[in-house]
Amino acid sequence: MNLHAQWIIGFIDGNGSFNVCIKTNPKTHSGFEILPEFVVTVPEREKQVLYALKSYFGCGYVKENSFSIRNYKHLYDKIIPFFEKHKLLTKKRVDFEKFRFVIISMIQGKHLTSENLDSAKDLKECFRYFQNKDK
Amino acid sequence: MNLHAQWIIGFIDGNGSFNVCIKTNPKTHSGFEILPEFVVTVPEREKQVLYALKSYFGCGYVKENSFSIRNYKHLYDKIIPFFEKHKLLTKKRVDFEKFRFVIISMIQGKHLTSENLDSAKDLKECFRYFQNKDK
Repeated sequence: MNLHAQWIIGFIDGNGSFNVCIKTNPKTHSGFEILPEFVVTVPEREKQVLYALKSYFGCGYVKENSFSIRNYKHLYDKIIPFFEKHKLLTKKRVDFEKFRFVIISMIQGKHLTSENLDSAKDLKECFRYFQNKDK
Repeated sequence: MNLHAQWIIGFIDGNGSFNVCIKTNPKTHSGFEILPEFVVTVPEREKQVLYALKSYFGCGYVKENSFSIRNYKHLYDKIIPFFEKHKLLTKKRVDFEKFRFVIISMIQGKHLTSENLDSAKDLKECFRYFQNKDK
């Protein structure tokens, strides 16, 4: 199954999600853990699409009827450049922009140090957004 | 919102449906009525996509959070050529092939006359497929 970039954008506009989960974790420096996830869920009969997406992006994993990427370095290297180049058409673009901000902040270590107060404030807003996104 | 044909294919592979509903109707010659429908359903916040699809295909209507085309002549003129030219990648291609067979049979009037027994048999199989598709 050969995937066209525009097909992927359409499919993600329909079936994809950019999620950020924040969990308390006393073992970390900050006392919490940030878990970003790019996920695609399909009905059981469409599972072959998940393997095609895994092959296209060269990372992530398929479990039951979902394909997901949680490794933030893979998200930074593969997912962010792809969706920067090929624009989502639905409101998922807003989800992506906030997701992108979180990932870049993680890569820059801002979520750990909070040296930059503006960035920390923006991050908090992003977290609040993801916490309320599906309500 | 400018839609790329491959984006539409991806979006329909994710969110579209090709349905055929068969209802008894004593007012018709055959005693039943065939109601084919191409339908796309989205979450409330994505309604603008439905209007973009309506504009792209130049037919159909938007109601609540769905875009649908039920007029079989519009389905024949607009939807069938589009999905013949741009191939669906998921199992929805099977739904489309059976849907296409039903529409073409309707256009040719075979569902009314049943002159061609093979075609009538194939049609019955299609109807059975759509009746069991989502079970």
